[in-house]
Amino acid sequence: MATAKLWTDEEVAADPRVRAVFDDIRATRKSDFVNNFWRALANQPALLERTWSSIKDVMINPGALDPLTRELIYIAVSTANGCSYCVHSHTAAARAKGLTDAQHGELIAIIGMAAETNALATVLQIPVDPEFEVK
Amino acid sequence: MATAKLWTDEEVAADPRVRAVFDDIRATRKSDFVNNFWRALANQPALLERTWSSIKDVMINPGALDPLTRELIYIAVSTANGCSYCVHSHTAAARAKGLTDAQHGELIAIIGMAAETNALATVLQIPVDPEFEVK
Amino acid sequence: MATAKLWTDEEVAADPRVRAVFDDIRATRKSDFVNNFWRALANQPALLERTWSSIKDVMINPGALDPLTRELIYIAVSTANGCSYCVHSHTAAARAKGLTDAQHGELIAIIGMAAETNALATVLQIPVDPEFEVK
Amino acid sequence: MATAKLWTDEEVAADPRVRAVFDDIRATRKSDFVNNFWRALANQPALLERTWSSIKDVMINPGALDPLTRELIYIAVSTANGCSYCVHSHTAAARAKGLTDAQHGELIAIIGMAAETNALATVLQIPVDPEFEVK
Amino acid sequence: MATAKLWTDEEVAADPRVRAVFDDIRATRKSDFVNNFWRALANQPALLERTWSSIKDVMINPGALDPLTRELIYIAVSTANGCSYCVHSHTAAARAKGLTDAQHGELIAIIGMAAETNALATVLQIPVDPEFEVK
Amino acid sequence: MATAKLWTDEEVAADPRVRAVFDDIRATRKSDFVNNFWRALANQPALLERTWSSIKDVMINPGALDPLTRELIYIAVSTANGCSYCVHSHTAAARAKGLTDAQHGELIAIIGMAAETNALATVLQIPVDPEFEVK
Repeated sequence: MATAKLWTDEEVAADPRVRAVFDDIRATRKSDFVNNFWRALANQPALLERTWSSIKDVMINPGALDPLTRELIYIAVSTANGCSYCVHSHTAAARAKGLTDAQHGELIAIIGMAAETNALATVLQIPVDPEFEVK
Repeated sequence: MATAKLWTDEEVAADPRVRAVFDDIRATRKSDFVNNFWRALANQPALLERTWSSIKDVMINPGALDPLTRELIYIAVSTANGCSYCVHSHTAAARAKGLTDAQHGELIAIIGMAAETNALATVLQIPVDPEFEVK
Repeated sequence: MATAKLWTDEEVAADPRVRAVFDDIRATRKSDFVNNFWRALANQPALLERTWSSIKDVMINPGALDPLTRELIYIAVSTANGCSYCVHSHTAAARAKGLTDAQHGELIAIIGMAAETNALATVLQIPVDPEFEVK
Repeated sequence: MATAKLWTDEEVAADPRVRAVFDDIRATRKSDFVNNFWRALANQPALLERTWSSIKDVMINPGALDPLTRELIYIAVSTANGCSYCVHSHTAAARAKGLTDAQHGELIAIIGMAAETNALATVLQIPVDPEFEVK
Repeated sequence: MATAKLWTDEEVAADPRVRAVFDDIRATRKSDFVNNFWRALANQPALLERTWSSIKDVMINPGALDPLTRELIYIAVSTANGCSYCVHSHTAAARAKGLTDAQHGELIAIIGMAAETNALATVLQIPVDPEFEVK
Repeated sequence: MATAKLWTDEEVAADPRVRAVFDDIRATRKSDFVNNFWRALANQPALLERTWSSIKDVMINPGALDPLTRELIYIAVSTANGCSYCVHSHTAAARAKGLTDAQHGELIAIIGMAAETNALATVLQIPVDPEFEVK
């Protein structure tokens, strides 16, 4: 279904530049499984390297937000953008990071509520309150 | 600019049904300030009541996610939906709930990263890995 | 603010091709007012002609849906697409075609509800029931 | 494919809170068929109750807009939000409420036209005419 | 899966108005293959005629942009709108017009980058620089 | 209006890490003007560095697509995502790279046409033709 080839492990192994990224994905995640997203990006090694490097910075390296919170934000954006692949992959990632059913239920309710009030604010073209401006 | 009237405090005071909601907003938030979103919804009392009741359930009542995390999810959805009013109001709400500059910076980076990989997954039409399916 | 020039009445009058469309807009709507949308499209006469011709077919010519219902659909799409200009112009058009405050209130509630359940269906990745397929 | 379990009739029957909502859905719609949307929401009984209650208010209870018009608005929003599930379910609902092929054809043309002019207004960044502001 | 019938060649042949458009599609594209998009639009002959006529004007007739560049723009819009069908059909069209793997890789990177910076500009609500206004 | 501070030249000059990026922006673009997008990103130096580095790779470094074509793709995505800031800044960038009025007119028509057919394909839920699959 993809509009570009999904690289097999054999094809990855034969290309040193792509293999280096896949090796790092496997080492970082401590898992042999590499999902289709990376197998599709393998067609553009520069994009593959840049995207994986950014994902490590943004989603994996220690920071001010914990790993599960980051996945919840990712799922929220992916839902609003209607990205089926991304909703699936980041829901799986969130579960792997400890997402409980209760948290998933609240996440879903917040995403739905936000989508509703976004639409209400837009159809009513509500002007921003001066109180919300950064001083 | 709004496509419906924004109710003044005087108009609110004169309508018992709307006033009851505004009183509860002020009491719940412990603040006299009621933002334009609610002043626009006041035109439809049933929608006003239902929306405020849902917001309390979803965003304020105790649950499995902490209040700041809920606001981060709200900002993420509002950004992806391009709702300027909502980004402003929920960023202000998040700051009121303790959002630090470091957390805001990470939130922004995650939202940007998610939007990018959403687009990559869509333009490549990447099929969902069977590993991501709920068993 | 526009990314292309908005044509004045003087500029329109000096260009026979653009003037013909503006004359037809004024005659069809029985009003001298021509809104900025058409003044921006005037930069591309072929696009101006094609768009006005399509708008007449779709929104004005008699058909199976009444004129007000058509405007409600237009507002719904414009809201979901986050088009501020379009929400403003088509809400004004709906009011001119008799939209009541009660109808506007219900329209708003439906748009909000649809946005919420759209998000719920997407975050849950709900599969289409076979019963919904066209036989 | 869903990111949460779809409840079977047996599971519904065993949970009094979920069963009460399903019973009301069946009684209100005068049909035994309950679609997957509700079977997925069953994982969060509070969200299930709130959503069904809102849907009844907004889509079923008598009001200023007739039931078919409400479905047309729902389809319009669902299309612009790219929700495949929702387009399917609400097109089926509209047909059940009497949508004719001629009306469906016009709905489609309006949705397409609105999407086009939304994009034109956005790429041209057309400023809102003062005439469209609410007085 | 479609919400309306997809017309077979036999059904097309039996309807002179639809057949005329299909004949022109085949003659213009110098190919017997007519894709599902047109088979679905066949349900509304007026919309079918208008859409095909517009596509010829916008995508096929000689102009200031070359045919491949036009397809790249089409893919970009289709991706941002999350239209799976359109991404597939216009990627195929672009390849037929000479899209190389290197160009496809760059297109993908630009689309991803644009989506990311769109989100950054929106979450930060960055005001438009006066330098960008049309003089 | 921004939800974070826009850095002045004085603030930039006082921060070596931010100043290094701004110096490179000015040198690369051969212009003293640095637009608000970068002044907002300055709040997160790591994001600023990463984004500018990616923009150089994707939009400026020589490749298979010419610089103006890349801007057209950027405008297309920005329009579909409803990013007002981005439509303004990249239309200005495209003009600086030689965009003619005729090319702008065609770009606009293609973006509008794509948005329309995206909506038509979605509301009709048209299945992807097997002919479009990558072999």
